[in-house]
Amino acid sequence: MLSTGFNVVGFNWMSSPAATELESIVMDWFGKMLKLPNSFLFSGNGGGVLQGTTCEAILCTLTASRDQMLNKIGRDNIGKLVVYGSDQSHCALQKAAQIAGINPKNFRAVATNKFTEFGLSPVALEAAIQTDLEAGLVPLFLCATVGTTSTTAVDPISPLCDVAKEYGIWVHVDAAYAGSACICPEFRHFIDGVEKADSFSLNAHKWFFTTLDCCCLWVKDPSALVKALSTNPEYLRNKATEARQVIDYKDWQIALSRRFRSLKLWMVIRSYGVANLRNYLRRHVKMAKQFEGLLVADNRFEVVVPRTFAMVCFRVAPSAMGITFNDETNANELNAKLLESMNVSGKVHMTHAVVGGVYMIRFAVGATLTEERHVSAAWKVVQEHTNTILNSYQ
Amino acid sequence: MLSTGFNVVGFNWMSSPAATELESIVMDWFGKMLKLPNSFLFSGNGGGVLQGTTCEAILCTLTASRDQMLNKIGRDNIGKLVVYGSDQSHCALQKAAQIAGINPKNFRAVATNKFTEFGLSPVALEAAIQTDLEAGLVPLFLCATVGTTSTTAVDPISPLCDVAKEYGIWVHVDAAYAGSACICPEFRHFIDGVEKADSFSLNAHKWFFTTLDCCCLWVKDPSALVKALSTNPEYLRNKATEARQVIDYKDWQIALSRRFRSLKLWMVIRSYGVANLRNYLRRHVKMAKQFEGLLVADNRFEVVVPRTFAMVCFRVAPSAMGITFNDETNANELNAKLLESMNVSGKVHMTHAVVGGVYMIRFAVGATLTEERHVSAAWKVVQEHTNTILNSYQ
Repeated sequence: MLSTGFNVVGFNWMSSPAATELESIVMDWFGKMLKLPNSFLFSGNGGGVLQGTTCEAILCTLTASRDQMLNKIGRDNIGKLVVYGSDQSHCALQKAAQIAGINPKNFRAVATNKFTEFGLSPVALEAAIQTDLEAGLVPLFLCATVGTTSTTAVDPISPLCDVAKEYGIWVHVDAAYAGSACICPEFRHFIDGVEKADSFSLNAHKWFFTTLDCCCLWVKDPSALVKALSTNPEYLRNKATEARQVIDYKDWQIALSRRFRSLKLWMVIRSYGVANLRNYLRRHVKMAKQFEGLLVADNRFEVVVPRTFAMVCFRVAPSAMGITFNDETNANELNAKLLESMNVSGKVHMTHAVVGGVYMIRFAVGATLTEERHVSAAWKVVQEHTNTILNSYQ
Repeated sequence: MLSTGFNVVGFNWMSSPAATELESIVMDWFGKMLKLPNSFLFSGNGGGVLQGTTCEAILCTLTASRDQMLNKIGRDNIGKLVVYGSDQSHCALQKAAQIAGINPKNFRAVATNKFTEFGLSPVALEAAIQTDLEAGLVPLFLCATVGTTSTTAVDPISPLCDVAKEYGIWVHVDAAYAGSACICPEFRHFIDGVEKADSFSLNAHKWFFTTLDCCCLWVKDPSALVKALSTNPEYLRNKATEARQVIDYKDWQIALSRRFRSLKLWMVIRSYGVANLRNYLRRHVKMAKQFEGLLVADNRFEVVVPRTFAMVCFRVAPSAMGITFNDETNANELNAKLLESMNVSGKVHMTHAVVGGVYMIRFAVGATLTEERHVSAAWKVVQEHTNTILNSYQ
């Protein structure tokens, strides 16, 4: 908490050299932990920056790609630019596109389905691009997600990048939730292909033990950000900037002023240590697996989508509801009731999603202090409330 | 520091009712302290929100006004929208316009001059608007500043609003620095006319004893923000939002996630108290006046623009430099040297601006612990370094 509260006013390097230097060092550390290609690190002419949230990270990279494209095709063509994601992309993408002046008609939430486990299909992406090209539009930006909000689905980065690169599209990889897990070798494969992307972000405040807000963004071409976001008024002129040997993070983000976010990330990395961080993440995944196992062993429940990280999407199956009630609408209704009754008990807090028409309950492990006994207790709550609700349906 | 570090993940009301409720209460308190018209308060169907920085506040209001206008004239006309400020507006305005997709050619930094004390002239604004209309462009947004960064100049809000309203332009008043002073009755007149504006912001982290970041934004029509910035994904659906009886601040800002910023502002207001806050601000102004008096009494110095708040813009006058050196270029050079030598001494830290071709040194009082003895000490530093530098010129 103190490292969060300890603030400086960092506009540019000059206004707080320590804050800038620590941030670039910590971002290179974290990038190496994730085995990001060198092209995303300062040592490889890329670099990392701490933003507040994913929405800001996307808005900055989208603005950079937009201006790069408009410089080629002319400012008057802003209305032709198209942004791609899937129907599982976080709403931050749509919001960023809205703010950046992309015509809302040119926002493509490409449909996913259960056959691709709600990941974005490269074939569907290419079809959408083709349709847009035929309509005279200009494909601009793709946001691929590793660990979607609703179900932690993973878009296949490598083939998506192959498609995107063919059409000159900027690819941003949003690994807000699941990116942290990729510091473990056994999970790293989820971001395979990231070397072909233009930018990559994850939220350390999500599953990396850091307080809100702390979104880590790496880009291959910082100059694209700087061209779109820099302003150099006289009152900020200084020798360090003019010597071009320092990073002025103000030109990598929306705001001019910035806080000393790297201190809290430094604190987390230094106090846990990499081995310990990996162990925590593994333990969370293991506990989610344990919960999943309990559900699978009880045939009243369905694990609706395969569990990939530390979140389990489940529901009471329609088949458990008795002959007169076993349709999807009734199942959705029952599961909504179940969630509400569990949350009202105050013993657990779970959330929901509706994907492919199916209402599912989301059980997530991710807090520092969660232990197996909490998972067992949660499972007990699920069973008790399910019993009560199923009895009322029989 | 603890109140800064104490965080919740507040997306919408539901995710942290306390954070939302406290924020709306504190913003109404602050609005009343500033004697903002009721139309900016929740009680008058307006309302306040805590943003990170002025750039974000401007970007949000600009996006709201942009979408409002484009809904009238069609999305294809985004390239015709024009944003107005003065050549003294903070660079945040230009950056926000860039991000929002306003054509950089349609950004007007209307020239100011010393005859209006570097305030934006309503006549000059209207002339710029007329030129744009004749060129088939669409005037959209005006940012008027109370307390500019370079010289704390004050744009005349009331007549500027009169001009803007005639052309249906959204007026945002950026009082980032000087707004705080307006809680003192004797300074309130600087924001007279704010009742005609659409939005108003100030930075509590600037001159209101609050840690970075804490930009207070009030708007008359929150629904304009919500229309431009809302997203309502399934996973955030909840009864409170659907009953439309709560504020979901996520729709008033760029990011979805938000921190508990109101806690630190509440802490400041509660711990100082209004009377004490006023006294601090008055004391700062008085100390700046005192420093100004010392400069005026020494005819080697010039106060370059009239002091309005707690910042003094001064320089060594060309006339003090001896016959062979007394031109403006030499004066600028000498004053740049003076500033550097004072800052290198480590005894003071001042900054500079160049306005109307004149390089000036900016002396600002604003920290909680500043006392008269610090001002006297600073004056001593100014004199010593000036003596040394003038001797080298003779």
